[in-house]
Amino acid sequence: MPNNIMEIIEKNFSKNSTKHFNSILFINEENLSFNTKKIAKICRNTEIAPVVKSNGYGIGANLLIKYYLKENIKSFFVGNLNEAIKIRNNFKNINIYILNCKIKSNLRLLIKYDLIPVINDIEELTNYSKIKSTKVPCIIHVDTGMNRLGIEYQQIFDATNNINFKNIEILFLMSHLACSEDKNNKMNLHQLQALKKVQKNLNQLYGKFIKTSIANSSGILLGKKFFLDLVRPGQAFLGTNPTNNKKKPFKTVIYFFAHIVQIKNANKNSSVGYGATYKIKKKTKIATISLGYANGFPRSFSNLGSVFIKNKKVKVVGKISMDLTVIDITDTDEFNIKVGDPVEIFGINRSLEEFAEQNNTIPHEIICSIGKNSKIIIAK
Amino acid sequence: MPNNIMEIIEKNFSKNSTKHFNSILFINEENLSFNTKKIAKICRNTEIAPVVKSNGYGIGANLLIKYYLKENIKSFFVGNLNEAIKIRNNFKNINIYILNCKIKSNLRLLIKYDLIPVINDIEELTNYSKIKSTKVPCIIHVDTGMNRLGIEYQQIFDATNNINFKNIEILFLMSHLACSEDKNNKMNLHQLQALKKVQKNLNQLYGKFIKTSIANSSGILLGKKFFLDLVRPGQAFLGTNPTNNKKKPFKTVIYFFAHIVQIKNANKNSSVGYGATYKIKKKTKIATISLGYANGFPRSFSNLGSVFIKNKKVKVVGKISMDLTVIDITDTDEFNIKVGDPVEIFGINRSLEEFAEQNNTIPHEIICSIGKNSKIIIAK
Repeated sequence: MPNNIMEIIEKNFSKNSTKHFNSILFINEENLSFNTKKIAKICRNTEIAPVVKSNGYGIGANLLIKYYLKENIKSFFVGNLNEAIKIRNNFKNINIYILNCKIKSNLRLLIKYDLIPVINDIEELTNYSKIKSTKVPCIIHVDTGMNRLGIEYQQIFDATNNINFKNIEILFLMSHLACSEDKNNKMNLHQLQALKKVQKNLNQLYGKFIKTSIANSSGILLGKKFFLDLVRPGQAFLGTNPTNNKKKPFKTVIYFFAHIVQIKNANKNSSVGYGATYKIKKKTKIATISLGYANGFPRSFSNLGSVFIKNKKVKVVGKISMDLTVIDITDTDEFNIKVGDPVEIFGINRSLEEFAEQNNTIPHEIICSIGKNSKIIIAK
Repeated sequence: MPNNIMEIIEKNFSKNSTKHFNSILFINEENLSFNTKKIAKICRNTEIAPVVKSNGYGIGANLLIKYYLKENIKSFFVGNLNEAIKIRNNFKNINIYILNCKIKSNLRLLIKYDLIPVINDIEELTNYSKIKSTKVPCIIHVDTGMNRLGIEYQQIFDATNNINFKNIEILFLMSHLACSEDKNNKMNLHQLQALKKVQKNLNQLYGKFIKTSIANSSGILLGKKFFLDLVRPGQAFLGTNPTNNKKKPFKTVIYFFAHIVQIKNANKNSSVGYGATYKIKKKTKIATISLGYANGFPRSFSNLGSVFIKNKKVKVVGKISMDLTVIDITDTDEFNIKVGDPVEIFGINRSLEEFAEQNNTIPHEIICSIGKNSKIIIAK
């Protein structure tokens, strides 16, 4: 954590230009850079292509790509064609791979925007290999056990007679690991072996060595045999823990803050919020903060959750509203809390992992929901 | 439901231009219009100012305002200054009221963009009343029991000597109901009476009759004494149930669909998704759909939830991914399901209310999360 983080947050909430945002999503560029260098070091000379699907896991794909370019990373995976076109409109000289995209009906757009589809379907692969006109290169996705997307492992052997491999440019053969956060899971090695078996078979049919890729963020921590020719980390850059171990291998990147909108002494026997679910039984000082369930503070935290002010944990009282939440600040007199003061949701006193766990989910689901109404600041 | 809704959805998923969207959020304009007319009829001649905060509850503020203008509605409530400026840049001739906005530090922007702040704080009101230069009109928010935003009921009496009421233009005096979904809750009437008491007092100090407003969507169903001079419904337009009763007073407006990305026969003894949490024990046909927790399909539905294909309920298998979910379609042979077919999340065979309940939340939290990556279609 940069020492000046609270200074940056306070300055931003007090500036006119940003005060009217509900929340600040702070990206610690120093730690992002640390993680990037660590990933590069782990993977040695393997090419790195970050996954920036779902608008960069909600953080902002443009912002992340702009950063990655500074680190000399030039290839990216996105979720669908819509995301790909948006990104291409902002970045001309990068490689954009689309994880989920039908090739036939979108060929014109793929050519126009210079996009690389991942082929997940045996029929598509068969048909595509027969097209004679201008085409784009592609990645072939083999399903080795995830049962989600990709061509069934066995299908690719059965259909080889129908596929004209020499008529397509195969950039990579990829697969996706199902249990890579668990280093000891036998499935990891099984999936790797299955991919290699397909590769071996395809090399002959294609007449050239085909590159392969299998590792996501947790995959790169499984050892060098999983690096292959390209790795596709996503969350590792963002510092969340891609393993089942308690110890985080990467540094914290994402910090989330709201600010105090109003402070008042609640009357005895009054109640807080919708449904009057929280009763004020004794002298209580409450504060309303600029965050609700529409902006990434899950409603399940109603009457249960907590936030941090001046590093002190304070409780949520009442039901969380769409863009407002009320907290009990009775025991914070020593800090002289005032309107405009920042409120930490996670990053310093509570990790994103803990916050997600308290809401019965994983960090990804949390971060996908926080970026959209936040002011995003990236700083060292 | 318009009879042609599935036709519209199917056409849209099969068109090249929209196929690359993950999901379709369908707004039934016929029912939206029905609800609008019903609200107008209930409230008789009371002015209606819809709440379109949090980007129109996630549906899209611009789209909703465009519609409301056709219905001759011209005043809107938004959550903060950022939302207000975005909307003003698209609509010149509407009144924009900002529920949560500090007036002093933002006065220049409020004047520039012709925006009306709601004053929630006694100090702000006091200071604002002393400013002599150009100002904007304002709404005064009195807290009559919500304990969230607004000037404490008693404070406004205590401070009257310090406030120069004749130096501000007060458009409305407003308050917000805490328990209005429960028609029999005594708090509703208490809050109304408190607001009227403040109004009576302020009328004298202001030297003119001050208009009042207290009713949100559920408030307008509490009877005509709650209409006052302006009502502020939000969810009622969108058809969700603003009451505790089982019977919905408004018609369904929001329908949510994904589509099928891939179909396969899963191998016996294989597993589905991350962590291999779902084991395939018998012959199973699975389909991957274009929706995950980043797009409004909560991760808590992993291995538990369901969706509808051709009006048949089918189960989610495995963990929900960021933008993909796998379902079991073994028992759907009769329908000849194929890639590209629409998948209903809610709207026809399951209400938004049921979907929310199955996820332990309220419709608002659901809809705030579904709009951002969807193609939004509004049609009759």
